[in-house]
Amino acid sequence: MTNRQIVLAARPAGWPKESDFRMIETLPPTMGPGQVLTRSLWLSVDPYMRGRMSDAPSYAAPVRIGDVMVGGGVGRVEESNHDRFRPGDYVTGLLGWQDYAVSPGDQLRAVDPALAPLSAWLGVLGGPGLTAYFGLIDVCHPKAGETVVVSGAAGAVGSITGQIARILGCRVIGIAGADAKIAWLTGELGFDAAFNYKTNTDYDAALKQLCPGGIDVYFDNVGGPITDAVLRRINVHARIAICGQISLYNLEKPEMGPRWLPTLIIKRAKVEGFLVLDYVPRFREGLEKLGGWLQEGKLKYRESIVEGLENAPRAFLGMLRGENTGKQLVRIAPES
Amino acid sequence: MTNRQIVLAARPAGWPKESDFRMIETLPPTMGPGQVLTRSLWLSVDPYMRGRMSDAPSYAAPVRIGDVMVGGGVGRVEESNHDRFRPGDYVTGLLGWQDYAVSPGDQLRAVDPALAPLSAWLGVLGGPGLTAYFGLIDVCHPKAGETVVVSGAAGAVGSITGQIARILGCRVIGIAGADAKIAWLTGELGFDAAFNYKTNTDYDAALKQLCPGGIDVYFDNVGGPITDAVLRRINVHARIAICGQISLYNLEKPEMGPRWLPTLIIKRAKVEGFLVLDYVPRFREGLEKLGGWLQEGKLKYRESIVEGLENAPRAFLGMLRGENTGKQLVRIAPES
Repeated sequence: MTNRQIVLAARPAGWPKESDFRMIETLPPTMGPGQVLTRSLWLSVDPYMRGRMSDAPSYAAPVRIGDVMVGGGVGRVEESNHDRFRPGDYVTGLLGWQDYAVSPGDQLRAVDPALAPLSAWLGVLGGPGLTAYFGLIDVCHPKAGETVVVSGAAGAVGSITGQIARILGCRVIGIAGADAKIAWLTGELGFDAAFNYKTNTDYDAALKQLCPGGIDVYFDNVGGPITDAVLRRINVHARIAICGQISLYNLEKPEMGPRWLPTLIIKRAKVEGFLVLDYVPRFREGLEKLGGWLQEGKLKYRESIVEGLENAPRAFLGMLRGENTGKQLVRIAPES
Repeated sequence: MTNRQIVLAARPAGWPKESDFRMIETLPPTMGPGQVLTRSLWLSVDPYMRGRMSDAPSYAAPVRIGDVMVGGGVGRVEESNHDRFRPGDYVTGLLGWQDYAVSPGDQLRAVDPALAPLSAWLGVLGGPGLTAYFGLIDVCHPKAGETVVVSGAAGAVGSITGQIARILGCRVIGIAGADAKIAWLTGELGFDAAFNYKTNTDYDAALKQLCPGGIDVYFDNVGGPITDAVLRRINVHARIAICGQISLYNLEKPEMGPRWLPTLIIKRAKVEGFLVLDYVPRFREGLEKLGGWLQEGKLKYRESIVEGLENAPRAFLGMLRGENTGKQLVRIAPES
């Protein structure tokens, strides 16, 4: 039994490429006290991983060259030295880009396949869902009737964010990069409106048309000129959550943009960055809410699935380019 | 008896100049019910007035061409149709750039010359003091031991902000534009450190040296490259209050700056604009605090005084250039 691992081969400058990753084969890891051996079934690829490939200072240490790429996954317990887990249990945690992982049991969460499909624990009931929930609720405090704009709206986080805002009675406008995504947002997901920023490049005009009463809340996954345009239409006491800035992550040199701090004074507005990791003590609250809405049919989701660990780099790079709709996943092994 | 008034003669593009103002002489205004006629004694000139000279959208309507320039002042009541005021009383309110004003009594506040000199009601006990108090306390929530950086630190607002932060037990670093101002901040006002941004132009190095533990709170009156440099050194959960952006107000075309929103994510930091006008219901609280500290000798202030209404434009332009230390005032008439 070998353990295939995808390790970081090189630190990218600008856009990462497949050669920045390398697959190696090792022996499965051995377990210590309190640890759990899992077989990876699903791997999540997410924008934050671009930051871990870089050695620029950030909130978490970078992946070292030659180390297994960091990543959340769902796995099946094979062996357990931890009271809470038995072989056959399903768990989620930072399993990494590999077939088998050994993790401290305390860092795994049990997953109930009766509540939702295993893969959902990496999306609507995982980091993306919790990010959407806490970023919107805790940073933006949306009120019924307010206008909420979401960038990266068809992604794993944005698609959940917009739906939560709808559940709360807000008017929700999505920004995404493909007509099929726009149709999904305004169709199945019930967004009030959306526009394709790749074909509709006059963002000011689009926002003026779709947000005639201005913008009260902005949940930003993207940054750059889209965010500049949103800021030009915010209302008094607007709240802006900075969740991601994916348009900037692959720039080889920093981009300049218009200075907009005077707008914050005129509008008495707040711009706040957040990380879902700061909400670990409240994850139970978030999961109860998200799970409830999911069971009531109020939250819908889509997955883009790439088959095989060996294709994880391709899945990751495609996600950075916006090729996914909803959550981008890699199926590492069949569920049963 | 004539009423000299300074009216807006032209909307400036870029830096305003004296010819954008014009002095006219009119009859003193006549009073209606509930109104009060005042003789102006002191006029405050403040950065926000630059915004009122422009017709760009803002939080308040612009001054119209030919209208008296807006401005806060301290005056002596000459005649009163309002229960709360009698001739000889001292009041503060938006008296405008003129010798005599008629104001609704409800929009005037009584001033107690026994508590503090009349001019102080335009500084430490006026808009600047209240701006410093609410911006620091309510937006930044400073805690003892935290590092607070103030830009425009020797101005009317900045000098009070830094002292309040010191009173709260913070380590306070000021940024100002003259060696004499730096000496005042670190001497009489008790700032822990300060630097002259005009002679010490490597802001990153200066902040690294003076804030070795990073920056928890930034109270920004200035904007531009100084703010960019501060943002590069903020700590996790930093709070940034945007009070003013005076470095941008006189630019003929918008300036570009580095995009820094990714920093807000990494640091889970907040940037919030505010206006003191939103705190009117809490002015009493602010004045009690400020008045108490003033009487205890914990708050010190300085005034830069220009003589004569006719020199108000010059005083205003000098303030925009940073020529004042502490509060810039215009003495319109002797107090007695």
